[in-house]
Amino acid sequence: MRAIVITEPGDPDVLTWTEQPDPQPGPGEVLLEVAASAVNRADLLQRKGVYPPPPGASEIPGLECSGTVIVLGDDVDEFRVGDEVCALLSGGGYAQRVVVPAGQLLPVPAGVDLVTAAGLPEVACTVWSNVVLTAGLLAGELLLIHGGAGGIGTHAIQVGKALGARVAVTAGSAQRLEQCAALGADVLINYRDEDFVDQVRAATDGRGADVILDNMGAKYLPRNVSALARNGRLVIIGMQGGVTGELNIGSLLAKCATITATTLRSRPADEKAAIVGEVVTQLWPLVEAGTVQPVIHEVVAMERAAQAHRAMEQGGLFGKIILKTP
Amino acid sequence: MRAIVITEPGDPDVLTWTEQPDPQPGPGEVLLEVAASAVNRADLLQRKGVYPPPPGASEIPGLECSGTVIVLGDDVDEFRVGDEVCALLSGGGYAQRVVVPAGQLLPVPAGVDLVTAAGLPEVACTVWSNVVLTAGLLAGELLLIHGGAGGIGTHAIQVGKALGARVAVTAGSAQRLEQCAALGADVLINYRDEDFVDQVRAATDGRGADVILDNMGAKYLPRNVSALARNGRLVIIGMQGGVTGELNIGSLLAKCATITATTLRSRPADEKAAIVGEVVTQLWPLVEAGTVQPVIHEVVAMERAAQAHRAMEQGGLFGKIILKTP
Repeated sequence: MRAIVITEPGDPDVLTWTEQPDPQPGPGEVLLEVAASAVNRADLLQRKGVYPPPPGASEIPGLECSGTVIVLGDDVDEFRVGDEVCALLSGGGYAQRVVVPAGQLLPVPAGVDLVTAAGLPEVACTVWSNVVLTAGLLAGELLLIHGGAGGIGTHAIQVGKALGARVAVTAGSAQRLEQCAALGADVLINYRDEDFVDQVRAATDGRGADVILDNMGAKYLPRNVSALARNGRLVIIGMQGGVTGELNIGSLLAKCATITATTLRSRPADEKAAIVGEVVTQLWPLVEAGTVQPVIHEVVAMERAAQAHRAMEQGGLFGKIILKTP
Repeated sequence: MRAIVITEPGDPDVLTWTEQPDPQPGPGEVLLEVAASAVNRADLLQRKGVYPPPPGASEIPGLECSGTVIVLGDDVDEFRVGDEVCALLSGGGYAQRVVVPAGQLLPVPAGVDLVTAAGLPEVACTVWSNVVLTAGLLAGELLLIHGGAGGIGTHAIQVGKALGARVAVTAGSAQRLEQCAALGADVLINYRDEDFVDQVRAATDGRGADVILDNMGAKYLPRNVSALARNGRLVIIGMQGGVTGELNIGSLLAKCATITATTLRSRPADEKAAIVGEVVTQLWPLVEAGTVQPVIHEVVAMERAAQAHRAMEQGGLFGKIILKTP
């Protein structure tokens, strides 16, 4: 098969479309013929050499894909050769074929085409596990989403609205905030010239955000804690603003508030399978009803992964970049 | 009635036993004839002027008591004049009489005498709400308790064991660690000459603590995060080691771990009532069975509250100091 390999840590041009050995499914795994993969920010970090794959994972980048089951490993009963699926991966998605544990396969939701489905598993599992399973967002609460225009953000807006929450988003341009509003966002905050703490308080009679989904880490930690409501839950899923931050425990304590930080990729297989199971039973019906829709910025040929990485680094996207397998 | 008042912020001698107006129960409240109160660390901070009572609370110190119902306010159906109870207070316990919302009254557990029961509400509600309701401690998990010899610690050891957890404690002397072991603690850590991160890892094959109950705040924050297991929950209920600490978000994220900080006193009445309800239904049966026992360091006459505060500041206690009303 052909796949994108990272020839050495570096800029997007190190991504090379080259011949690689076909992976072989073990017990409980399937081999997929990949229709498409999608770009996640973690792929950019992996390319730079600062986010190595977890032990046992493929060195090929790509944390999600869609495709067709072509080989079943032993002990796989839930799927058949020919099934069209999408998949949450620990790596290996930027390729013509990939091996996946059966617990990380999801059916393609009715009404979503196979290529588009490649961009769903990461955002769906990330948003559902953090906003619903970890933070327990309730109807009527306020959900603040940093990076509302990204893949995670555009999905989280729709999930928050579907659950009956009010949604506030930050983004860096008026145009992207308008696009967030079109997805349902109620409170639009331009992080370039507005303070999100002030804006969230103004939108909630001073109460603050019940749940914050954060991709900035250290840089936003003090202000995120300030923006939390009583019994608020801050969930950190990225560290684009640094790793080590200052925590005002007194402020957290006065609010009985919670901070959780998670990453999907490093979770063990049983946790991933549990999340996938929740996504299929709880979220897929919302996707099939059109309440939550995939948001795709662009579809790029997989051989041109470098171009896709460059676009993501430049910013200004709205939704996900899909990499279509030739 | 007579009560202890804080004449001005200062050392224990500012605590003065003096004549005060009787409080009057409003709707949903009862008036108690106080049998005893107990000393909590928050009382010391309030006396120093750094922890003012929440809005609407009595200026008289004392966050818990036991006693007899002598007047029912309107709309109180669950209790009768003459009932012996203990109570979670927002203040006012160091007095001959105190007004309490009915939702914060607990029956005196069978087998516990009325004076001893004064030392149960704060530790019971603090430990149950944090270790069980917030952190969700499970059988087989490791619970690390900082300050194992204090009122909270001695109670938490017993609750952790009753729930089937392994319990690790820190304390500052071999004698107090032995006393913790007698209550059931499995892993004994002298914080004066041992590193609790090393000790917890050594006791768990490197896995770490599933739940940490912390009273130190900033000073222990980096090491607490280091000591957490995957999916670990750090619950901070005190800041004896400072308010603002350094948080390594990357470490938290790699473990999918959670930090919650809570205080019981500032919770609204409905949250307090919900916690009290859980304590009465879930924990009181363990107390009545003798599985969880009150641990009392000393009973002191309430007029001598200054002496009790001095003893707590000097340290070296094991369990709680009760203040008995004359």
